[in-house]
Amino acid sequence: MTSPAERAARLDAEDPLAPLRERFVLPDGVVYLDGNSLGPLGQGVPERVDDVVRRQWGEHLIRAWNDDDWWTAPLRIGDRIGRLVGAAAGQVTVGEPTSVQLFQALTGAARLRPDRRLLLSDAAHFPTNRYLAGSVARLLGLTVREVPAAGLPAALAESGPEVAAISYGAVDFRTGDRLDVAGLTAAAHAAGALAVWDLSHAAGALALELDADEVDLAVGCTYKYLNGGPGSPAFIYVAHRHQAGLDLPLTGWHGHATPFGMTAQFEPAAGIAQARIGTVPIVSLLALDRALDVFDDVGLAAVRRKNQQLGDFFIDLVDDLAAGTGLEVASPRDRERRGSQVTLSHPDALPVMAALIHRGVIGDLRPPNLLRFGLGAPYTRYADVVTAVETLTGVLRSGEHRRPEYAVRRTVT
Amino acid sequence: MTSPAERAARLDAEDPLAPLRERFVLPDGVVYLDGNSLGPLGQGVPERVDDVVRRQWGEHLIRAWNDDDWWTAPLRIGDRIGRLVGAAAGQVTVGEPTSVQLFQALTGAARLRPDRRLLLSDAAHFPTNRYLAGSVARLLGLTVREVPAAGLPAALAESGPEVAAISYGAVDFRTGDRLDVAGLTAAAHAAGALAVWDLSHAAGALALELDADEVDLAVGCTYKYLNGGPGSPAFIYVAHRHQAGLDLPLTGWHGHATPFGMTAQFEPAAGIAQARIGTVPIVSLLALDRALDVFDDVGLAAVRRKNQQLGDFFIDLVDDLAAGTGLEVASPRDRERRGSQVTLSHPDALPVMAALIHRGVIGDLRPPNLLRFGLGAPYTRYADVVTAVETLTGVLRSGEHRRPEYAVRRTVT
Repeated sequence: MTSPAERAARLDAEDPLAPLRERFVLPDGVVYLDGNSLGPLGQGVPERVDDVVRRQWGEHLIRAWNDDDWWTAPLRIGDRIGRLVGAAAGQVTVGEPTSVQLFQALTGAARLRPDRRLLLSDAAHFPTNRYLAGSVARLLGLTVREVPAAGLPAALAESGPEVAAISYGAVDFRTGDRLDVAGLTAAAHAAGALAVWDLSHAAGALALELDADEVDLAVGCTYKYLNGGPGSPAFIYVAHRHQAGLDLPLTGWHGHATPFGMTAQFEPAAGIAQARIGTVPIVSLLALDRALDVFDDVGLAAVRRKNQQLGDFFIDLVDDLAAGTGLEVASPRDRERRGSQVTLSHPDALPVMAALIHRGVIGDLRPPNLLRFGLGAPYTRYADVVTAVETLTGVLRSGEHRRPEYAVRRTVT
Repeated sequence: MTSPAERAARLDAEDPLAPLRERFVLPDGVVYLDGNSLGPLGQGVPERVDDVVRRQWGEHLIRAWNDDDWWTAPLRIGDRIGRLVGAAAGQVTVGEPTSVQLFQALTGAARLRPDRRLLLSDAAHFPTNRYLAGSVARLLGLTVREVPAAGLPAALAESGPEVAAISYGAVDFRTGDRLDVAGLTAAAHAAGALAVWDLSHAAGALALELDADEVDLAVGCTYKYLNGGPGSPAFIYVAHRHQAGLDLPLTGWHGHATPFGMTAQFEPAAGIAQARIGTVPIVSLLALDRALDVFDDVGLAAVRRKNQQLGDFFIDLVDDLAAGTGLEVASPRDRERRGSQVTLSHPDALPVMAALIHRGVIGDLRPPNLLRFGLGAPYTRYADVVTAVETLTGVLRSGEHRRPEYAVRRTVT
């Protein structure tokens, strides 16, 4: 029987994406499995950022809006992201934070179905999604019904004619459950409702097909699997067929039909440009632009195949090595139903993750008992998975996580 | 009689703020009078940004949220801005775009006066402010009445009991008219209404006193006179007395009382932290943080004195040199009623500004006929004003602006 290290060596040697790791700056002594919170720094990004700061801002000053194409950047980079999520050009813009894009998308979707008063939202949704659904519902006089994804078809069958929109995440942030975007979108449509998808844990990791799946609106974070950098701006997708009737709440001058006319009334720009709001954080946006170069010659199908295989390998190792440690696999074992992460549960998750991070294996924690490990296919080696699982089981078997210094909750993990 | 150059030389020699210019990176051959659109690059900012990208993001990865205090940055930097606008600690946070902060502030203000259905907003307000006032009013069932600032006291006297809030800019973006923040806030309060101020063209240029003037809510841009860089995140101020009753629409998880509890219901954090929304653009935010160092040992009273004097000198030179050119002064001549810019009008404003920029004097244009010149006191010399006015009048007298290449409107000026 081959050892985990031997199996990993063979898988790494056969991995067609292995060379992509060279496109990232990864610190020595660290196994980084938290790219689902913050993707790592790409090679070339610091140089690009320095050029934006010193030459574009510093030398060109206000002229950079034209000379360096700052003005067109949100739509240009939106189209680059569109190619990674299966969206033809002209349907994606990028610039505002995820929460803001989500507020836009939920309000926009509800206004496209003005006679319907119900929003169905995932009971397991990320907190901001839940809070904002409530806020949008309050502003528009709607009701939010929280329904687990498994119950969504039944809820649509029951309340279909009342449902304006459904709001779900393509991948559950806690467990990594992958939802059936095409199937649930079709179910929504069968009820006359729209489907709003949050792609934060999917963009850059799954082979999304927004156009083919007839998704209506979507938003997504760019600092996770798209590696855009801390707080890099989020994107919004609005399918072509909805753009003419779109009616968004954050009516900023960049989304105006004639922004430099500075007219008294808001008149939305044609197309996805109407989803622009105001001046976007250019330095953060152009860091993202450079980070996306990683995907220029890489198909998302290959990325997806690798993160599925990494996940299978991770779970196999847990099965082999973790007996009696109290660890349980909380993610789906079926690779088709799993996103690009493996989540384990353990009653001592907090100090266990602290001990792991101390040893250089960086995952994160979702209270009370979940340990998350993101599998960024472009830079994660099978050997990293071995290190992670062996370190994890080693910590548990040695009781190292019971040291007092690991009992303290840090602000962010 | 002394020449303009001689007068400028004397004023520059006597200027106590003259050494501050060394804190900026300004390109050779350029007189930059567009800091009211995009402030120039500060010394040390590129190095700080590079450190954030390479060391904090690249090496610390997700750990930077704790180790480099990313999590606390919006409130810490908010307090830094607070000191520049006359706000005691705990009333300012920074992170989202200006439009988003404005949406928050207008909605929050209206909800603090739930029995009143009228918003008074400046008929000369920046387009986004006008559009967003309309959007907020529509969502909350309010009416917006656009009233020029001069008519505001009369409008409040007439409709006071119906007015939830007034929404005005401390400085008119076109003409540079400075409004009486204290007086108009007091007039609003006398009517039982709240005052929401947009400080975009005032923060970093005027000696604002938000607390002393009893301002209720305010927002402001940081990439103009605070020199934070292109699209650097905006701030929101909520006076302590309103924080307990605040009810904001963009309910993101960073504004939650226990963000990492990830609970089902939104419960706002105590204090100004409730105005946080989600993950902010860290690279752009920390560039701003470093840029603010310029003001560490500089009082805004001195900055204000200098930009008043620069403005007086600018207008004097126009009076002396521009006779017969068609130029008119569109800003107030009274330095107390003028912000930190001088606006001139000319029927050929568009090609005139194009010719000026070609000659290295950078101002900007507000259609159809306004030429704007921002006077960033920390880096503008009196000699720059001479260059600007002499170049401007030279262009007009030579007819250089009639060359065909200057007739084309660029996207952004």
